[in-house]
Order: sequence, then structure tokens, then C-alpha cells
Amino acid sequence: MTQLQAARGGEITAEMAAVAEAEGLPPETIRERVARGTVVIPANRQRKLARPQGIGQGLRVKVNANIGTSPERFDVEEELAKLRTAIDAGADAVMDLSTGGDISAIRRRLLEECPVPFGTVPIYQAAVNAQAQGKLPAQMDEEELFAVLEEHARDGVDFFVVHAGITREGVRWLRREGRLTDIVSRGGAFLASWMLHNERENPYFEHFDRVVEIAREYDVTISLGDGLRPGCLADATDRAQVHELMVVGELVDRAREGGAQVMVEGPGHVPLDQIAANIRLQKRVCHEAPFYVLGPLVTDIAPGYDHITAAIGGAVAAWEGADFLCYVTPSEHLGLPGAEDVRIGVICARIAAHAGDVARGRGREWDDEMARARKALDWEEQARLAIDPEKVRRYRESRAEVGCVPDPDVCSMCGKLCSMKLTSEAFSKF
Amino acid sequence: MTQLQAARGGEITAEMAAVAEAEGLPPETIRERVARGTVVIPANRQRKLARPQGIGQGLRVKVNANIGTSPERFDVEEELAKLRTAIDAGADAVMDLSTGGDISAIRRRLLEECPVPFGTVPIYQAAVNAQAQGKLPAQMDEEELFAVLEEHARDGVDFFVVHAGITREGVRWLRREGRLTDIVSRGGAFLASWMLHNERENPYFEHFDRVVEIAREYDVTISLGDGLRPGCLADATDRAQVHELMVVGELVDRAREGGAQVMVEGPGHVPLDQIAANIRLQKRVCHEAPFYVLGPLVTDIAPGYDHITAAIGGAVAAWEGADFLCYVTPSEHLGLPGAEDVRIGVICARIAAHAGDVARGRGREWDDEMARARKALDWEEQARLAIDPEKVRRYRESRAEVGCVPDPDVCSMCGKLCSMKLTSEAFSKF
Repeated sequence: MTQLQAARGGEITAEMAAVAEAEGLPPETIRERVARGTVVIPANRQRKLARPQGIGQGLRVKVNANIGTSPERFDVEEELAKLRTAIDAGADAVMDLSTGGDISAIRRRLLEECPVPFGTVPIYQAAVNAQAQGKLPAQMDEEELFAVLEEHARDGVDFFVVHAGITREGVRWLRREGRLTDIVSRGGAFLASWMLHNERENPYFEHFDRVVEIAREYDVTISLGDGLRPGCLADATDRAQVHELMVVGELVDRAREGGAQVMVEGPGHVPLDQIAANIRLQKRVCHEAPFYVLGPLVTDIAPGYDHITAAIGGAVAAWEGADFLCYVTPSEHLGLPGAEDVRIGVICARIAAHAGDVARGRGREWDDEMARARKALDWEEQARLAIDPEKVRRYRESRAEVGCVPDPDVCSMCGKLCSMKLTSEAFSKF
Repeated sequence: MTQLQAARGGEITAEMAAVAEAEGLPPETIRERVARGTVVIPANRQRKLARPQGIGQGLRVKVNANIGTSPERFDVEEELAKLRTAIDAGADAVMDLSTGGDISAIRRRLLEECPVPFGTVPIYQAAVNAQAQGKLPAQMDEEELFAVLEEHARDGVDFFVVHAGITREGVRWLRREGRLTDIVSRGGAFLASWMLHNERENPYFEHFDRVVEIAREYDVTISLGDGLRPGCLADATDRAQVHELMVVGELVDRAREGGAQVMVEGPGHVPLDQIAANIRLQKRVCHEAPFYVLGPLVTDIAPGYDHITAAIGGAVAAWEGADFLCYVTPSEHLGLPGAEDVRIGVICARIAAHAGDVARGRGREWDDEMARARKALDWEEQARLAIDPEKVRRYRESRAEVGCVPDPDVCSMCGKLCSMKLTSEAFSKF
């Protein structure tokens, strides 16, 4: 039984109990939401997941870190280091997007080490396999697509991305309206070129029941990928994107009917003023399925700083109701991330998620504790409470080295003219 | 005559014409808005400002960088380097917050070099002068406050912060309601302790006409400081903050009546869901005076990353109607910023300002150009268009060094499985 089926049957699984505990909610509340499909708990029954996570309605907003090899760089040790960096930095989930080296072996090794939900995009491996046989993604074998999907499920992957919502009709919507960057999702591009080349429908869409069957058997949560997500502000929220979202909405119903857990992926590049509309539309059209957003990036002009453009969009998305943020690293649009990129990406996505949580009335105790430590001028406590304690300690030390920390009581910004200190003294006297 | 007085008299000054040109708006539109006080052009008549900037209604959102010495570190060359860094990174204005060394000499030197509007907080120098005489800020001489204000005006400062809105009544509101971090504005803390110690009203408030007179004589734009701005999420939008804002609103009217240009400073630490309310409230209560926000920071838990928490808040504030963003650097809450902090702070504030501009329907041409360069896989053009071209080039080079750029056509993220390339090929064939 999947978590969804168990919940419908009235059962509170160990994973639901763990999520309830972590979120400070009654187990029955979690069970109800899993039963309705507004919360998913990605936890493949093939493996024992150390730290199950709930994603969705009323829960803390979660953060995913993408790692994985490329054809030019495929050292499993480097990926293990990125995995540990992501976990240490506080990632709630990790996705392996490997496209280089022995992809299956790398995935299995990472899965052994990963204490949090682990996701993949199986079509990447299918495309690499095709390439190894001298074929274009458009020439991928249909059965191979499903074989790889099943292999990932069997290996213990907790959630996998399936771009089942991109259809021939969706591509027609896109081409009729016109776009600046057409298709920027790799899965979307593989499938669009496949459909055009073969004059056939997207196999994931046409045979969605097979996807659901595999997902149900292993309890892999289906993450419905957004193959037509906008790759720039100009393309955001266009008819192609909205068409795909509606198709995805129908697939959500079918996955749930089939007993599989399902969530929905969203944009992408979206200007600030369209984020709320995107979230509300997804929630309505996809019947409150958990929403997993990739950014959104609120401007296209800042390569090298897209962890920040994504933090802006992610915070607003989280506030408006997004449930799961995919991190973006400083290397986005430039190259494969290294370990330091991974660390920064996770921290920034966590900041965005927390800002959204606070705006929705959750988790401000943490901020209040920090405020009290600041008022008390307690520097060690401020470092301990900080999202990145090491960075705080390094900063204070580096300032001390250049003679900039005048007094352990105060910081080098205001020195002895510290507003906190002056006010405390004045208030205590008068 | 001040810009405000000239505009009221129907005159289009050279500065108004320059602003109109830079903003792509008719000069008469700028004149009208300056006349109504919804746009300010900080430009002291004592100096020839190379690049005048308009701040306010319907204009591109501007970005300010704070620099300045501390008592422990007061090398004028270091501050000049920070000034150049800020200008190179695209700051629209610079404030000198020096509290160490020969403050007047440093200010004059910086003013000579600064091509954009230059601001100060004169009360800092008054407090340092008092300290040099063995006195607390609470013991500052009232006449000294005005003497320093006049000195800054005479030196050519284009805008100065005057915390005239913090009153004894405001401090009572604060103490009755209670706060986690009381007063975090330095100017606010100096004046609150002064009022409590002397049992007298804030001299800037009591003698606001003198402030206006000095501002008018030199055409210094008054920036009404928010001495009671919240220093943590828990204190945001409380009665003390709102009381001060209403007092500030009355002072806006008095400044305008006196012929002085005036803008208003705002918070601070504000959760995402309260930012829109803060902007709307300020615009209404302060009769559409330009709004200059310090952040806002949307969470307290991320020291070391407050350039990011501020970019989130700043973007939303700009979208909602803020006109001027004060940058926040990674060293906020930790220590005095160095040159690299300045650079990162300016870039992040510019990202926030641009994201807000785009959400308000301005400036997306830049994003669209970048989108076209991406679609064309034109890496040099992408670097040229980037907000930080050097960072993009460095990133690409560093990836190439570790063997991660497979092909000049594509990036190391997707390599040969590039969605842009695959889609272009498929669309051109079918």
C-alpha cells in the first residue's frame, strides 16, 4: 500500500507519525491530508528512509537540492560530497540529475547515503542511454522510457519527475503564440522533439496508467514536471504553460484515483506580479496538489546571482502557498554547481522558505529568539541561532583581524555608538 | 530656489531635464511631480552634481550604498575605494555614515569624487563630537546639532537624514506596548536618550523650521529618518512605528510648505505579509512623499545573508511602490562592510529594484534581451547584458578550467543535452 492508500484506509503509518511529530501537528491531521492528496510523503517502500518529510498543505515549506554528474565530470566522490554538503546545510530533499558516468551506480551509492527523500528525472538517463547508442533524444525507445522509470523505482527513489503534461496540443499552443526561449526544460525538450519526430503523443501522457502503476507498486511520489515552463519573464504564464497545467491537473486526478502520491512542478522565470496568480491557478486547477516550484526567478538579468533572484521569487511563492522550493545555485545558467554552490543554494532557499513560512504565520519563534540574542548583545547565541553559524563566526573573526571589533559587547558597525546599548541604558535609568 | 520652488514656479531646471532624459519621460512630467513633491531630485546647489537622480513617483527605483569610517578604521583611501566600488557596481546614490577620523575632511574628499547624490546623517558627527568632549549622546548640545546640519549643507551634501519624527510621545507608545529590540536606529537611540535625559522634546522636531530653513537655503533634500523603525519581525508595524510615521507625515507637509524637498525613510525588519501595508500606509499618511526603505529584511535568522533577506523585502517593497532602496551588505548585523561587501550589496539591491520595476511594468526590455541572448546561445552577449559581467566571465572560465565546458555552444549544466538547442533543431525541422 502507498501512503495515500494507507491514509484512505484510516491507517497512520510510521512515516505519517514522523511527519506529524516534526511539524507539531496531530497525526490524524497528517493522515487526513495525505488521504486527500494535499500532503505527500515521498518514501519508497524499497528503502528505509531515515528522515521522512511531508510536503504540502499547512506544513513547513521544504527545500530541495539538485546534485548530479555531467558527461564531462562524473566523480561519485564529488557527488557524495555535494550530498553531504546539501544535508549539512539543511536540505529537506535531494535530487540526483546525473547525466555522466555510470548513472545507475552513482544513484545507488547516493541513495545509500541520503537520509532525506531522494528524487530523480529518469528521462535524463533514458536520453543518455539513447545517446550512447548514437541516437538523439527524439529517437528514444518508448519501452526504454518505462524500463528506466521502473529501474529508478526499484532502486528506492522516493519521487521521480515525469513530464506527462506536455502534449502535441501543448506544443501547438506554444508555437502559435510564440516564445522568446521556447522550451527550457530538458525533459520537455526531449519529449517535444520526440513527439515532433515520431508524430506521436508523449508516451508518458499516452500511457500514464503505466506511470501510475509503477509509482503505486513502489510508492514513488510522482512529480509532474512542467516541460513547458517559461525560461524567461516574457514567456511566463502564457497559454502553453497554462494548457500544460490543466493537463497536469487531470493527471493529478488520475494518479490519485490509481492510489499513487502526486505533486506538481511549477515555474520557472516569473515576474513578481504574476507569482500569486501562478500559485492560485495551480492550487485550483490541480485540486490542491502540493506545488513544487523551481525558483521562480523574478528577473533574467542576473546570471551569477540566480540564487538571489530565486530567493525573491521563492519567498513570495512560499508565502502565496507553494509547498516545496527547488534551490537555485549561483551557477544557474552558467554551469554545473560545485559543493560551495550547493551550500549557498540550500541556505538561500531555506531563507526564502522560512520567510514564506513566517508570512503564513509559522515559525517566527526562531526570529524572536534571534531578536532577543541581539538585544542582549549575545554574540555566541546569535551565531548559534544563525542559519549559517560558521559564516557568522568567520565574519566576526575577520573583522577582529583588521582591528574592527572594538569591544566584545558591540559590533564594528556602530562600535560604542550602539543603539541597543544606549537605549537599554536610557530605559533602565528613566 | 530649490528644485521644488523652481518646479512650482513652472521652471524646468537642468536637473529636471537630466532626470526626464534618463527616465525617458517628458520634462514637464518631472516638473509636475517635483512641484507636488512626489518626486525629489537631491542636488545641493553648492556643488555641480555630475549625474542627478530623480526619486519617486513613476521613476526607476533607485539604490543607495552606505559607506563610511568607524572609530577603529578611518582610512580615507579605503572609503574612496568603497565609493568607486559602489559607483562601478551601479549605485544611484551614496551615503557617508562616517564616525571615525576627521569626519569633515573625509566627507569633503568623498563629495569631490561622488558623481551621484550624496547623503549623510549629521547627528552621527554631532554624537562623535560630543563623545570627544567626554559627553554621552544624551548630553549633546542642541545648537551643535544644528551647526553640524548646516556644515553638511554648506559642504554640498545632497540629502541628509533628520530623525525629526521621534518624539517623547512616540517613545511612550513604544514603552507602553513593549518591544523585543526597542530602538535600533542610531539616530533614534541618540534622540530618545537625549529626550529622556533632558526631559525635553527632540530638537529636530521642536525646531523643525530651522531644519527646513537650512534645507531650503542649500536645497538639501530632507530624508525623514525612522528612529523607531523595527529591529526585528516581532516589532514590525507596531504602534510606535505607526505613531512616528504619522508625525513624519505632518513634517512632510511642513517641509513642502517651507519649500524644501523631502522624502521619508521606512523599515527595517518586516515580515513579507506586512510589506504592502507599510508602503500603502506611508504613501497615504505622508501624502505620496518618495519612500526610502532600509531593506526591509524579511527574517531575522540570516546574519551573513542579509543582502538576500533585504533583496527579498526590497523587491516586494519596490513592487508595492517604494522608490528608493538602501542596500544591505553581507556584513549587516556583523560589522563594518569592506569593499567586496559594498559590491555585493549594490548588485543585490539593484536586482531587487529591477524586479520591482518589472513587476510595475518598467524595464523588461533588459530581461528580454537576455532571453534572446540565451536562446541564441550567445555567451559573450549574455555576459555583456548581465548585471555583473565579470562574475559571468569568471564563472565560465573556472568551469572551463575543471574541464566542465564541453562545447562553446552550450553550458556545463546540460552539456550536449541542451534544451534550447534541441528545441531549435526540432522546431526548424518540423
